[in-house]
Amino acid sequence: MGEFTLIDEIRWRCAVARADVVLGIGDDAAILSPPAGAQLAISMDTLVAGIHFPLSTMPFDIGWKALAVNLSDLAAMGAEPAWATLALTLPDADAAWLAGFCDGFAALAQPQRLALVGGDTTRGPLSITVTVHGFVPAGAALRRDGARQGDRIFVSGYPGDAAAGLTSLLAAALLRAPAQDDLDYLMQRLNRPTPRIELGLALRGLASAAIDISDGLRQDLGHIAARSGVAATVHAAQLPQSPALARVGDAAQRLHWQLAGGDDYELCFCVPQAAVAAVQGLASVLGLALTEIGAIEAGNGVRVVGPGGEEIPLQRGGWEHFAA
Amino acid sequence: MGEFTLIDEIRWRCAVARADVVLGIGDDAAILSPPAGAQLAISMDTLVAGIHFPLSTMPFDIGWKALAVNLSDLAAMGAEPAWATLALTLPDADAAWLAGFCDGFAALAQPQRLALVGGDTTRGPLSITVTVHGFVPAGAALRRDGARQGDRIFVSGYPGDAAAGLTSLLAAALLRAPAQDDLDYLMQRLNRPTPRIELGLALRGLASAAIDISDGLRQDLGHIAARSGVAATVHAAQLPQSPALARVGDAAQRLHWQLAGGDDYELCFCVPQAAVAAVQGLASVLGLALTEIGAIEAGNGVRVVGPGGEEIPLQRGGWEHFAA
Repeated sequence: MGEFTLIDEIRWRCAVARADVVLGIGDDAAILSPPAGAQLAISMDTLVAGIHFPLSTMPFDIGWKALAVNLSDLAAMGAEPAWATLALTLPDADAAWLAGFCDGFAALAQPQRLALVGGDTTRGPLSITVTVHGFVPAGAALRRDGARQGDRIFVSGYPGDAAAGLTSLLAAALLRAPAQDDLDYLMQRLNRPTPRIELGLALRGLASAAIDISDGLRQDLGHIAARSGVAATVHAAQLPQSPALARVGDAAQRLHWQLAGGDDYELCFCVPQAAVAAVQGLASVLGLALTEIGAIEAGNGVRVVGPGGEEIPLQRGGWEHFAA
Repeated sequence: MGEFTLIDEIRWRCAVARADVVLGIGDDAAILSPPAGAQLAISMDTLVAGIHFPLSTMPFDIGWKALAVNLSDLAAMGAEPAWATLALTLPDADAAWLAGFCDGFAALAQPQRLALVGGDTTRGPLSITVTVHGFVPAGAALRRDGARQGDRIFVSGYPGDAAAGLTSLLAAALLRAPAQDDLDYLMQRLNRPTPRIELGLALRGLASAAIDISDGLRQDLGHIAARSGVAATVHAAQLPQSPALARVGDAAQRLHWQLAGGDDYELCFCVPQAAVAAVQGLASVLGLALTEIGAIEAGNGVRVVGPGGEEIPLQRGGWEHFAA
C-alpha cells in the first residue's frame, strides 16, 4: 500500500460532499468558500499513541476520537462544523488498520456533514493531528472570558466516566471493579466521546462562557475563571454521576475522576440566573443531562465545596502535559 | 516548563498582529474573519524527526522548515498567507530548543504577516504538524489540472540542491564532496527552503497549472500531467543547476538529485506559449531564476529526454512514503 493508494483509501472512506468545497483532497491545498459574513472557528488537536489512548485501542475508536476531540472544541465555541484536515503518521501502511480508522472518523464526520478536504500521510510513530474548521455568526462565538458574578455553572453529561473507564482498564485492582456492562459503558465514554455540537449551537446567545472538558472539569473551569477574572465555586454534591460511575471505586476516587479525570469532552458553561430555565428546557429538547453544579463569584480560582460549604482539598489539578 | 508556560512562550515569540484575528491562542478555537468574497486555501504538512529532517538539525531550522513546507503549498496555489496553527509533539519541554524552534518559525512568519492562531502541544516523539490558511480571489487559484498541450514548463530556483545537501551530510563518501562554502549553501537550501509566495501570487492569471516540488520534480510534474490529462517532456540539458550543485558528485547523480531529490520547495508551473515573455519579465522583477525546462504534449506521463531527444531512463520516481 503506497502513499497515494493510502490517500485514495482515506478519500473514498471519508467522503462527504459539500458545495463550499471548491477543491478537496489532491492538490497542493484545498480551496474553500466560507459563507458570507460568517466568522471561522479553527481548532487543532493531536493524539499520540500511548499518551492519549492505550496502545490496545481499536483503530475505529482512534479515528472517532481523533475527530471527536476537535469537534468538541468547535462545540465549545458554538461553531457549526464544516471542514477538516488530517495528518496521519503511521509506523506502516496497514490496510486493515487504515480501513478501521477511516470508518471511525467517517462515522462521526458524515452525520455532521464535515468534509475531509486535505492533510498529510507520513511514516513515523503513530500520531494523529486533525484541524477542524467551523462557522459562527460574527460576535456569537462562546468564549472563555464572558463569565460574570452571579452566573450559574452547568456541565453536560457525566464527567468522570472516561477516567473511570481508563483506570478500570489499566489498574490491576480497584476497590470495586466495574461489572462488564458498566465497563463497556465507561469504555464507550472513553473511546467514543460525543462532541456536544448541538448543545454548543443552542448555547449561542444564552451562555456567557463555555469550555470543553478535556483536561478535567476543575482545571478547565479554572480557565474560564482566569480568563473572565472571576472565581468559581463548585458544589461536590451537585456533580452528576452516571449509574455506572456510582458503582465503581470509592467516593474519593469518584470525586477525583469527576473533577480531574479529563477526556470527557462534555461542555462546562455559565449562564446568567435568568437563563437557567432555558437551559433546563434545552436539556429535555436535547435529551442530555445539563446539571447546575455551582456559581460564579467575585475573586479568582476554583473552589470545590462540600455540603456544609467547607472546601474540599484536591490531590491534583488535572491533566497537563509537561507537568513537573 | 509546564504546558501553559510553553504555550505562552510560543505565543509571544511568534506574535504577529492581524486585524482579522478576532480571537487567537487561548480559547477552545481561534475565531477569524475571512475577507469578503475570497476563497480560503488550506494546507497541512507534518515533519517527523529522523524522517523529514536529520536528528542533528538545529531547532531554528526545524521551526523554519515546518512552516516553509506549508507556505510552499500556499505559494503553489497562488494564495496569500494569513493564519497558521501548530501541533508540536515534543519528547520533553526543553526551553532552549523551544526558543530556537519558535525563532525559526517566526523568522519566516513575521515578514509574511502570518499569525499563529492556535494549535496543540503534546508529549511524544518529536513531530511537527502545521496547518496554514491563505486567501485567493474566487476562481484564481493555481491548480494542478489546468495544463494544456503546447504549454511551456518552468521551474523556479535550482532543484536538486536540497538533496545534494542531504546526501553530502549523510553519505560517507561522494565522488566529489562539496567544499565547505558549497556545503553551507546546499545545507541552507535543505534546511531553510524559501516558499515562493511572491512568485505564486504573480502567477495568478498567467500559469495554467502549478505545483511545489516536495517529492521530486519528476514525480510532482507527474501529478500535473495526470490531473491535467496530458504528457510532459523535460529536457535534461535545460534543467537549471546551481554553481554549488555543478561542483558536487557526477553528472548522473546530479541529474537524479534534480529530478527525484525532493525537499526543494521550488515551484514547477506551466504557461501558454504567449505568456513566456511575461514569465521572463517576472524572473527579473523577482530576482529569481525561472527556467523553461520542457513542454506539455498530448498523452500521459513524464518523459525526460537527452540532447538528441532520446529518453533517459530513471532509477526511481521520487520521494514516496510507504513505497514498497
